[in-house]
Amino acid sequence: MTTPTTSVLSDEILGQLEKQAIELPSWAFGNSGTRFKVFATPGTPRDPFEKISDAAQVNKLTALAPSVALHIPWDLVDSFDDLRKHAEDNGVELGTINSNTFQDDDYKFGALTHEDAAIRQKAIDHHLACIDVMDATGSRDLKIWLAEGSNYPGQADMRGRQDRLNESLQKIYDRLSGEQRLVLEYKFFEPAFYHTDVPDWGTSYAQVATLGERAMVCLDTGHHAPGTNIEFIVMQLLRLGKLGSFDFNSRFYADDDLIVGAADPFQLFRIVFEVIRGGGYANPDVAFMLDQCHNVENKILGQIRSVLNVQEMTARALLVDQEALRAAQVSGDVLGANAVFMDAFYTDVRPALAEWRESRGLPADPMAAYLASGYQEKIEAERVGGVQAGWGA
Amino acid sequence: MTTPTTSVLSDEILGQLEKQAIELPSWAFGNSGTRFKVFATPGTPRDPFEKISDAAQVNKLTALAPSVALHIPWDLVDSFDDLRKHAEDNGVELGTINSNTFQDDDYKFGALTHEDAAIRQKAIDHHLACIDVMDATGSRDLKIWLAEGSNYPGQADMRGRQDRLNESLQKIYDRLSGEQRLVLEYKFFEPAFYHTDVPDWGTSYAQVATLGERAMVCLDTGHHAPGTNIEFIVMQLLRLGKLGSFDFNSRFYADDDLIVGAADPFQLFRIVFEVIRGGGYANPDVAFMLDQCHNVENKILGQIRSVLNVQEMTARALLVDQEALRAAQVSGDVLGANAVFMDAFYTDVRPALAEWRESRGLPADPMAAYLASGYQEKIEAERVGGVQAGWGA
Amino acid sequence: MTTPTTSVLSDEILGQLEKQAIELPSWAFGNSGTRFKVFATPGTPRDPFEKISDAAQVNKLTALAPSVALHIPWDLVDSFDDLRKHAEDNGVELGTINSNTFQDDDYKFGALTHEDAAIRQKAIDHHLACIDVMDATGSRDLKIWLAEGSNYPGQADMRGRQDRLNESLQKIYDRLSGEQRLVLEYKFFEPAFYHTDVPDWGTSYAQVATLGERAMVCLDTGHHAPGTNIEFIVMQLLRLGKLGSFDFNSRFYADDDLIVGAADPFQLFRIVFEVIRGGGYANPDVAFMLDQCHNVENKILGQIRSVLNVQEMTARALLVDQEALRAAQVSGDVLGANAVFMDAFYTDVRPALAEWRESRGLPADPMAAYLASGYQEKIEAERVGGVQAGWGA
Amino acid sequence: MTTPTTSVLSDEILGQLEKQAIELPSWAFGNSGTRFKVFATPGTPRDPFEKISDAAQVNKLTALAPSVALHIPWDLVDSFDDLRKHAEDNGVELGTINSNTFQDDDYKFGALTHEDAAIRQKAIDHHLACIDVMDATGSRDLKIWLAEGSNYPGQADMRGRQDRLNESLQKIYDRLSGEQRLVLEYKFFEPAFYHTDVPDWGTSYAQVATLGERAMVCLDTGHHAPGTNIEFIVMQLLRLGKLGSFDFNSRFYADDDLIVGAADPFQLFRIVFEVIRGGGYANPDVAFMLDQCHNVENKILGQIRSVLNVQEMTARALLVDQEALRAAQVSGDVLGANAVFMDAFYTDVRPALAEWRESRGLPADPMAAYLASGYQEKIEAERVGGVQAGWGA
Repeated sequence: MTTPTTSVLSDEILGQLEKQAIELPSWAFGNSGTRFKVFATPGTPRDPFEKISDAAQVNKLTALAPSVALHIPWDLVDSFDDLRKHAEDNGVELGTINSNTFQDDDYKFGALTHEDAAIRQKAIDHHLACIDVMDATGSRDLKIWLAEGSNYPGQADMRGRQDRLNESLQKIYDRLSGEQRLVLEYKFFEPAFYHTDVPDWGTSYAQVATLGERAMVCLDTGHHAPGTNIEFIVMQLLRLGKLGSFDFNSRFYADDDLIVGAADPFQLFRIVFEVIRGGGYANPDVAFMLDQCHNVENKILGQIRSVLNVQEMTARALLVDQEALRAAQVSGDVLGANAVFMDAFYTDVRPALAEWRESRGLPADPMAAYLASGYQEKIEAERVGGVQAGWGA
Repeated sequence: MTTPTTSVLSDEILGQLEKQAIELPSWAFGNSGTRFKVFATPGTPRDPFEKISDAAQVNKLTALAPSVALHIPWDLVDSFDDLRKHAEDNGVELGTINSNTFQDDDYKFGALTHEDAAIRQKAIDHHLACIDVMDATGSRDLKIWLAEGSNYPGQADMRGRQDRLNESLQKIYDRLSGEQRLVLEYKFFEPAFYHTDVPDWGTSYAQVATLGERAMVCLDTGHHAPGTNIEFIVMQLLRLGKLGSFDFNSRFYADDDLIVGAADPFQLFRIVFEVIRGGGYANPDVAFMLDQCHNVENKILGQIRSVLNVQEMTARALLVDQEALRAAQVSGDVLGANAVFMDAFYTDVRPALAEWRESRGLPADPMAAYLASGYQEKIEAERVGGVQAGWGA
Repeated sequence: MTTPTTSVLSDEILGQLEKQAIELPSWAFGNSGTRFKVFATPGTPRDPFEKISDAAQVNKLTALAPSVALHIPWDLVDSFDDLRKHAEDNGVELGTINSNTFQDDDYKFGALTHEDAAIRQKAIDHHLACIDVMDATGSRDLKIWLAEGSNYPGQADMRGRQDRLNESLQKIYDRLSGEQRLVLEYKFFEPAFYHTDVPDWGTSYAQVATLGERAMVCLDTGHHAPGTNIEFIVMQLLRLGKLGSFDFNSRFYADDDLIVGAADPFQLFRIVFEVIRGGGYANPDVAFMLDQCHNVENKILGQIRSVLNVQEMTARALLVDQEALRAAQVSGDVLGANAVFMDAFYTDVRPALAEWRESRGLPADPMAAYLASGYQEKIEAERVGGVQAGWGA
Repeated sequence: MTTPTTSVLSDEILGQLEKQAIELPSWAFGNSGTRFKVFATPGTPRDPFEKISDAAQVNKLTALAPSVALHIPWDLVDSFDDLRKHAEDNGVELGTINSNTFQDDDYKFGALTHEDAAIRQKAIDHHLACIDVMDATGSRDLKIWLAEGSNYPGQADMRGRQDRLNESLQKIYDRLSGEQRLVLEYKFFEPAFYHTDVPDWGTSYAQVATLGERAMVCLDTGHHAPGTNIEFIVMQLLRLGKLGSFDFNSRFYADDDLIVGAADPFQLFRIVFEVIRGGGYANPDVAFMLDQCHNVENKILGQIRSVLNVQEMTARALLVDQEALRAAQVSGDVLGANAVFMDAFYTDVRPALAEWRESRGLPADPMAAYLASGYQEKIEAERVGGVQAGWGA
């Protein structure tokens, strides 16, 4: 195998990489699966405290994941002060609060968009309760993934739903205080199979644009139609000042929720390149988060692999010779510009990153370090009994 | 122009329609949903007997659904003789037996394709047990949907799996007797998100071609890549003599499992047209089945709607003026040929079908008849307690 | 159940249908094809006057197509006054002016977005010249389809291009006067294969929103990613007050430019339904246009078929029992709402439309009337010599 | 930039790489474009001899492209002996012969599938003439891309066409002699937009399976539905003994015909890995060819970039630690198996390949060497006048 020296990554690039922070989703440590089967795995957390402990391992070994997103009600605890303290004791913070309006029988036909004002109010109240949690946890962002839509043409009045959505969001937005933000995620389809109320970036943008300055769009990399040029959307949302956060993952087909960079590493490179080009890197306004499902692989290792993939691709994107690239672009040198771009992508940054990690007291190979740490054996031995956390708990 | 009175459907067409039989899936009467949520509904069956009772309602009101497919182990009962008798008492038969090798922890990395011979044997044995059920129920077809694959590149040896699949299928096929058949379903993706072991009709065809004459392909209308011309595949499999059965449903995005004809009625028309053109209609070798999930709608009504959709579209396809169509095709009259085709599609056959139904002692409007029958109220009142049937039971 | 006599369409509906106007594209009467081959056909126009004559036939036989869109420079003539008079003599008007910045060698790497200010200015000047034509023809709309983008990652600075596009569009917009409008079309891909500068409705909307009130979005029904819910976009753009016009056609795969309604009639129904529901029908702010390529079929018949398809589907969409639909939607009656919707779609409006046509002095069957008119034989005999019109002339 | 040493590539791997041969398409050196515009470029060949000269440059600088595929009638010459000698003088051979049945007005509605026996015979005769050319050039393979299909449902009798296709192919196959082969390409869509007569690998396989042993399938990497797992098809066709050749290119959307590896390098890696795993590498039965369009980039450089991309990806695929991979696969170690796979993909083989190239008397950087060679200036100066070669000449 190759032995590049550290010279691959300049001090300036390393300085940039040092600023990287990727938020982990608490639910990635619980069980997930498909509609056909959720496989159970030894060592799976039984409560939010155990999820935080697992997430903290990722940060301990990579220094890349200093915060953990919570999902309400899955992560409801008696005392968020205790959970916050538990996180701090483990070297991480509590991050984005994610609401859930898709697992209550009342929401079968919508929540923030429902025809019935009482059900809309229930959904709004849930979000206000999430903001209470944010107040307790010190979280900045309320992330809303709107799992609403319809399965059959004619079933729903799409226009009325859009208007009601806007009213509901405004009520939620108005309750935010200080630096708190509302971030609205869009998704092409699923769980609704005919229409989805926020199916694309344009809809999310049009909705948040009317709410106020602290309402932003969340881009989940797995939530687009086949063939969509995602980096173009990244560029556009940064240009419009409305890119609030990323949910990173990858996909071959639908919302597969695979490890980020696993399906199309070059696409991840292009996305990170546009983030940097548009000023979204190491910019607190643009949160980097993961949103993945580790259905068949070890969950903690899956998260480590993911943050490393983002780090490696960021290093590659920082390597692009911007001056040479611009020169080629301006002169219409198609192959020259592409070559500059690909040269960075094909550069093997892994040895330099390993060396840099060690220089900072981190393991050169965090995946191996985790396996050698005994943590997995420990949780498998300790976490017996109880109910394994999943999407319903 | 067409004048839709009852004359729209000739006696010859009505004679053809009389031969139509569409098998219902027992699982359509239990709960289903997405990975996010399965909504419970009042009146849902708690056991296979209650599923059969519900399925029988569909047949009683439409005379279109004389048999019910079972799914093993979801429909395991102490006595299949009793279940068979229950079906007969309700005017229906037990039909295709569907195996299940995707809900056991052992099958996380494959079943008939697994690297471990012991797990393969377990999966083969499950199928042999299914054939035992077939012997008991008098079912002709063993349908295998192979939910196997991998989520990450490199995870699996696709070639080795293909070879092992062939060996496993041969062992199962060799156990069949008399008129029994093996029908192999293909699916583009899900639950696996990188590779699926039988992802397309070509693979299913190549696999069954080596097994023997009574091994056939099952075409599920929701299991293709975006844009696929499904009626072409229908034509090709009929031409090759290997179209064993249909799983009808419809989709906008992935395997949405919506009511057949709900997403693209014209596509359903084209499919049925090719079935007729290729000799697959009213041909016992080509089984018509439904495979749908009624996540948000009433399940019994959903099945009634489905069989009516198939019937209506069959009537339209039978209306195509074959002679005029051929003349236009031969002469290169693009718009003329298309017009003949569309004329049949746009003809409103519903009044004629309603009248014909009444002439046979059936309700003109089976949907309304079901609602008026009191059956729904009855099952909602009676089926309290117990565990509602779903994909795991 | 519906009984399709003329009673199917009420006077109110017929009154609505009377207001329908669909603009024809002059280029639909010239030759078109794929990159592989453009087939020549007898009778093809050799100049814009002959295109107008052909378009007028469509209107004469259907009373649906009172205006013709021009494409500059394909339709440049010495005197637009003469062309206008020729149109009026033939009972039609000149309509939307379409610009062209994709067939000049200078535009290989962009036009309104080009890195070189001189080329951008050339492209802007072309649009100003188009506005001059609008002044001469009395056209209201300047339609811009931006065929710009790049083929390889890295080739272009997508962000810089977006900013330059906005500047260029502003300069063009500022030149408009009176009631003139700028309508910006978006397209998923082609002729660029990596990135397109206006690839989706969100980008078109974000661009025109900054220009001014008379800048609108054009929705071409063939310009979306696979699976896109187009009627949702129609709803959203109407809600945002930015739906300026439609380019109707249909597709199975990419931008196939087939006859509208040919690929998925039910989708056309859903689109027209949302137009009506959102107040976009018979609303001068929302122009209905065709943009199709008749590669293998007779072009004049192809256009007649298209406007009839739009008319028939509009009639069906007007048939939806809005009250019953709302009641079912409000009560969560999924199958009931869908049934109301489908009942309208499945109603055969063709006999009633034929009768209505005759009552207005139009042929019951415009396709047959065209074939019987002798016009086709006449143009085939007369139009010999010269160069057949196509996309380059 | 990284300085890996040659140790990255073992002698065994270099020995494998030495066997690599990629056939170039003569038409890649002529002009191509989209249906909207074909841009002219200075230095474009005016005849087949000049195309061969250009192709020879690619081989001279890379030693990867020892043969050139011809397209009939685009590459018809008075004397194929002269052309063959010209090729040999330039260090290359004449390779696969490609037929063309899509640019004659007679073929508007089909060629080998046409309803009219006379037109079918004309198309068959064209292929027999191609075999005459093969006899003259010493070519082994007759490649048939069947651009046939229909644009509208009902337009064509798909089943009859399939049967006629088989008859036509059999007549062509029967004329082959010695080692000559027939290779049938499939394509998802274009130029036909409703149905294509050979749309998928299954159809091509079913067709060639009946012809005989020397009838094979050609897999063009750009000819699949969105999301298709192409490497699975590679695996399957190798398993079935029917993978005859590759047409390499890449795509983001449809059949974009971009430089191979440009759109998704990791997909190219997976494809080459399956070729090697299935015994298709350095196997004369499996021909590697390019089929690309250089619409906006320099054509000769585009071909150099392409063969280098294939070479680099082959080197990476050969680097996969097969033993470690199998061990991880067998043990169900998902992340371990994926890591072995990705480690090879992420290894930067470029410096080692450059060094190896130099050791063989080739330029370390063939792209730079071409630019420095003066060849481009020479052809731009010399090739004035005449008609630039394109798809029609």
